[in-house]
Amino acid sequence: MIRVAVLGASGYIGGELLRILLGHPHVEVGAAASARLAGRRVDSAHPNLRSVCDLTFTHPDDLGAHDVLFAAIPHLESMRQAEALLERGRVLIDLTADFRLPDAATFERYYGVPHEARDLLGEFVFGLPETHRKELRDADRISVPGCMATAAILALHPAAEAGLLEPAVSVDARTGSSGSGRSSGLADSHSERSGALRVFAPSGHRHEAEITQETGLDVTMSATGIEAVRGVQVLCRGRLRGPVDEARLRETYRRCYGDEPFTRVVARRRGAYRLPEPKILSGSNFCDVGFVTGPVPGGGTTLHAPRNGEDGQALLVGALDNLVKGGAGNAVQCMNIRFGWPERTGLEFPGLHPI
Amino acid sequence: MIRVAVLGASGYIGGELLRILLGHPHVEVGAAASARLAGRRVDSAHPNLRSVCDLTFTHPDDLGAHDVLFAAIPHLESMRQAEALLERGRVLIDLTADFRLPDAATFERYYGVPHEARDLLGEFVFGLPETHRKELRDADRISVPGCMATAAILALHPAAEAGLLEPAVSVDARTGSSGSGRSSGLADSHSERSGALRVFAPSGHRHEAEITQETGLDVTMSATGIEAVRGVQVLCRGRLRGPVDEARLRETYRRCYGDEPFTRVVARRRGAYRLPEPKILSGSNFCDVGFVTGPVPGGGTTLHAPRNGEDGQALLVGALDNLVKGGAGNAVQCMNIRFGWPERTGLEFPGLHPI
Amino acid sequence: MIRVAVLGASGYIGGELLRILLGHPHVEVGAAASARLAGRRVDSAHPNLRSVCDLTFTHPDDLGAHDVLFAAIPHLESMRQAEALLERGRVLIDLTADFRLPDAATFERYYGVPHEARDLLGEFVFGLPETHRKELRDADRISVPGCMATAAILALHPAAEAGLLEPAVSVDARTGSSGSGRSSGLADSHSERSGALRVFAPSGHRHEAEITQETGLDVTMSATGIEAVRGVQVLCRGRLRGPVDEARLRETYRRCYGDEPFTRVVARRRGAYRLPEPKILSGSNFCDVGFVTGPVPGGGTTLHAPRNGEDGQALLVGALDNLVKGGAGNAVQCMNIRFGWPERTGLEFPGLHPI
Amino acid sequence: MIRVAVLGASGYIGGELLRILLGHPHVEVGAAASARLAGRRVDSAHPNLRSVCDLTFTHPDDLGAHDVLFAAIPHLESMRQAEALLERGRVLIDLTADFRLPDAATFERYYGVPHEARDLLGEFVFGLPETHRKELRDADRISVPGCMATAAILALHPAAEAGLLEPAVSVDARTGSSGSGRSSGLADSHSERSGALRVFAPSGHRHEAEITQETGLDVTMSATGIEAVRGVQVLCRGRLRGPVDEARLRETYRRCYGDEPFTRVVARRRGAYRLPEPKILSGSNFCDVGFVTGPVPGGGTTLHAPRNGEDGQALLVGALDNLVKGGAGNAVQCMNIRFGWPERTGLEFPGLHPI
Repeated sequence: MIRVAVLGASGYIGGELLRILLGHPHVEVGAAASARLAGRRVDSAHPNLRSVCDLTFTHPDDLGAHDVLFAAIPHLESMRQAEALLERGRVLIDLTADFRLPDAATFERYYGVPHEARDLLGEFVFGLPETHRKELRDADRISVPGCMATAAILALHPAAEAGLLEPAVSVDARTGSSGSGRSSGLADSHSERSGALRVFAPSGHRHEAEITQETGLDVTMSATGIEAVRGVQVLCRGRLRGPVDEARLRETYRRCYGDEPFTRVVARRRGAYRLPEPKILSGSNFCDVGFVTGPVPGGGTTLHAPRNGEDGQALLVGALDNLVKGGAGNAVQCMNIRFGWPERTGLEFPGLHPI
Repeated sequence: MIRVAVLGASGYIGGELLRILLGHPHVEVGAAASARLAGRRVDSAHPNLRSVCDLTFTHPDDLGAHDVLFAAIPHLESMRQAEALLERGRVLIDLTADFRLPDAATFERYYGVPHEARDLLGEFVFGLPETHRKELRDADRISVPGCMATAAILALHPAAEAGLLEPAVSVDARTGSSGSGRSSGLADSHSERSGALRVFAPSGHRHEAEITQETGLDVTMSATGIEAVRGVQVLCRGRLRGPVDEARLRETYRRCYGDEPFTRVVARRRGAYRLPEPKILSGSNFCDVGFVTGPVPGGGTTLHAPRNGEDGQALLVGALDNLVKGGAGNAVQCMNIRFGWPERTGLEFPGLHPI
Repeated sequence: MIRVAVLGASGYIGGELLRILLGHPHVEVGAAASARLAGRRVDSAHPNLRSVCDLTFTHPDDLGAHDVLFAAIPHLESMRQAEALLERGRVLIDLTADFRLPDAATFERYYGVPHEARDLLGEFVFGLPETHRKELRDADRISVPGCMATAAILALHPAAEAGLLEPAVSVDARTGSSGSGRSSGLADSHSERSGALRVFAPSGHRHEAEITQETGLDVTMSATGIEAVRGVQVLCRGRLRGPVDEARLRETYRRCYGDEPFTRVVARRRGAYRLPEPKILSGSNFCDVGFVTGPVPGGGTTLHAPRNGEDGQALLVGALDNLVKGGAGNAVQCMNIRFGWPERTGLEFPGLHPI
Repeated sequence: MIRVAVLGASGYIGGELLRILLGHPHVEVGAAASARLAGRRVDSAHPNLRSVCDLTFTHPDDLGAHDVLFAAIPHLESMRQAEALLERGRVLIDLTADFRLPDAATFERYYGVPHEARDLLGEFVFGLPETHRKELRDADRISVPGCMATAAILALHPAAEAGLLEPAVSVDARTGSSGSGRSSGLADSHSERSGALRVFAPSGHRHEAEITQETGLDVTMSATGIEAVRGVQVLCRGRLRGPVDEARLRETYRRCYGDEPFTRVVARRRGAYRLPEPKILSGSNFCDVGFVTGPVPGGGTTLHAPRNGEDGQALLVGALDNLVKGGAGNAVQCMNIRFGWPERTGLEFPGLHPI
């Protein structure tokens, strides 16, 4: 039994961390810290935890040292409080963007401010088990990737690693409203945000930098807010190098992800759920990835027709719950790896259908 | 380890039973039976179970005997197939309406057909742990109540049992679209059903009979389909008998439900989640119940004002996930009681926020 | 051609007034006033008016006199600025709650503050054409009712006026998020408000006072926020006095509303739209009202059964778009009456299906 | 006053035609034909037309000749019934896909069946006023484009015509559920379709052929069903030819669409509605088009950062209501042009906000 603490515990990622950690058999939640809500009950902010969680929020200043500290605080705060965080967590699992990009110049270009903890940049392991599992086994500083970045990296990784894709790839991301956190601007109000197809980042979304870094591809990314609270889906469009067909792609993905506990290959020929669909992933730690290339089954009922022969284009699709595999769940999976526990521990919920 | 089977496994309640039972540590799912999909993979109907469930659907005719048989088939089918069901399940947990109303005349009035297994009517225990726990401990035939009935019975039961309510009570139920099952009529299509406030049962909803039977009150019920896939909420309006105040009501509910694993009293004075809200219950086995009586906190921000003194009216509210506590989860809770396992076994998922 | 101005033009009701007035053939919009957005383009706040409206917001202090002034400002502001409003509008159409309740004591009980323009209270005509048409013809001060109150009054009025109802009536109102205006509290954010069934006013909602006043009934009201941006639906439950059947009710409603341009009787025996459904009213000035009493058609497909004979209960249902018939459209209808124009002028949009 | 008829009047496009035509000052609706519903009231299928439309459905066999016949029937039916249609409409406005692609080989490749009225293929004018206005003035046979095609063509046309784009363009379309018509398959049921991000056409969507034909670009298209009943949005990604900046693009679009009554250029630098958003277009005949190229405004609040200099990529966005500018409204606009009426006639509704 190890003792863990969550900093930024009143936010949405913080709440999801608590939900998962409270059900985890090998950890004890020592503290849920929030400056804003210190002294109030945790379930006043997270009503789903009523009767499940009896904690009150601790003030961050009162946070002692823990075996693991999860930092679910606003971007830029982790680099500013880096010293304090490292003192309080023997293992620090950071969910901000601050330590995802080891190259300070890239960080500064995408975040518009100088990095304030440059000397620590190289010490964090990128917290994506599918691509960094081995390093995570003894990592004491882990930086969990962004939600849309996780979906895109996992959708692209096997093809990119196998050299099957031309470098230029566009990523069209769709995201639910919880991705912007507990926010209360007018644009985030229900009346304005409901039913939206808001192209809030037509280019240069910050997660672009992570995808580029992890896949080695030349990524252009746009992001649209869609009608959902949870859920991310990415459509990645690229060209295959040489004579690669769908069977080859399928084999590559299955080999890469066949033993993964949380990354499923979903690339069927028909059916409403033939490709990754985030709505059935709510609450789960799965990331589903799929792809289509070349001719597709057409005909009258589906309203689409075969392409005129092989054209070399590929559409790669990824989907996940932005608060789970795109944040809290992925962080817990990293912890499980770090402590040698089975990766599924505490993350068994498979998602719901219908929902 | 006992062996269980689900009949009607391709439906929404059937899928939810599989989701829960596959994660249950004391059972093995021996068969998922569906006449329509026999031979196909279970995850073709329930995409959330990909990588979680490797079963294919069995034809009901090929279903052998099991320790527990869950019947999640259409109403009227259980009474028609009663002999077969009893042969195949040492313990039969029926999720149809067929054995909920021991009084055949009441059944026939509400369902419009003669009951075809009258001699069995008295043998089933009403599958609501909160009110029938003791009988469930050795019940071999359990009839799980309807989703809206469960919410209303649990919202009304403590007050009714304590004699705090006048008999005349109206129940206004709101329900998501999954309550009508896997259906494909035009009225259930997304374009028609989306955003609806469809008063589909302005009076005499069939669950009225169950609520009347279990609470002893004189219930009038209406039901409205609302924009949601999952979720039921009931607003029950009645009058308090004599000088009962909210504190008395609160004490009564806390005493009644204080030890219940899945029924929470949610009756706060303020906050967006002060009363039961089904959206945070998706996937969970909780039923939240709350109430308001007499003066309420008013003021400019809340747009409601104190009533002119005590008027004796009470609003009692219940909420649950219609497929879980309103169906599959409640059925599993009954099984846990019957086999002497802790009631929470397999039902730990607390629900999500935000969602 | 008369000149009109809208005060509070940056709000949701204000925007809807502009949308309607800009298409009205007999008026010219002289000014759209907003303190917050003075100097900015109107279509920056109301993107649906791009290319339709070339105005910029005027500061309220710069607002001159107009033939008609629509006040769509926050509650309590109209009574506080009453002198200024009366100077600036030869005809004042007030959309706040301030002059809806001629009885100051009732106002003060429901709004929690003393009325600051008591001497004007008796001068306003209640702006509901269906019940006050004659007085509206020469009214220079009109107070437009609340959205939920309008739906409930119109649903109850014919039965109440004909003496067909017992006095005690409960009103269960459901409302979309735009009813709380352009707001940006956390509880109104998309992540929290989406999919909600929030019983925000379990009793004593302020519109209760208007319904009581206009129908003479003894009304108890609750209000629930539902998943919608626009739309109000009320379910009113009461008892019929003596031997009143549905045919009698139907005749009463048809006689009362047969010539009304915007109040439709929707009380069919079957179909998904048999009773008033707000979603098909978005943008329209219709209020649909319907009712059900006594036995209803049952049977297997509808999941509800005949009641055991006549029980004297009646369910009366009303639906409207809260920003149109529940606000801006109703205000324009009042103006049309006041100036002797056909009531439908500028209000022809019938609503959409599907939506 | 001319007499018009709608064939396929019980469908969603048919209903929208009726809604618009019933409010059109220069036409009289002579018949609403539906084989399935012949003899029933029109408002039984289109509840928004209650009190607005007193017609009953005519059987198609009983349909006489009219000045204009709108054919809103299933794809392939217009070519099969071509003779009959031409007899019954002096002017035929066809809303099926049958006569959109003059090249029979292209038609056959995308629709998978031989064209059965090849000799008529060249006689239809492509019904897009923005690009074919002049030919529409005396066209007696008009083929209205597909909903997603209309959005994409209008988003791409000015840049394509001015030679500003490299040929290879990808179109990522998002569409509401009404685009598949009144359908009642399981996959279209509310429980399955609600909240979906369903990549139903990962490549080769049929509208691809129309976009390619009308823009001369080499288009690759995917389509995703999103949570909405109405609404289409397309994201078109391409590369600019040579040194084209956003100002040049802006000038090109403004010049091209400056006088268009229904195509608005929406390409602002900030705000929730900076780019085309379909939700505010419901019921309106507007198509909004916008674009972003090169560096975008970044900074902490918007979560996206400047690209590393000009990279030549452009994102072009289009949005419309699939049943209006994507179907019925566009058809009426074509009729207005054909008969010399102001194009806005009958199409004045500007859309709603919020919604």
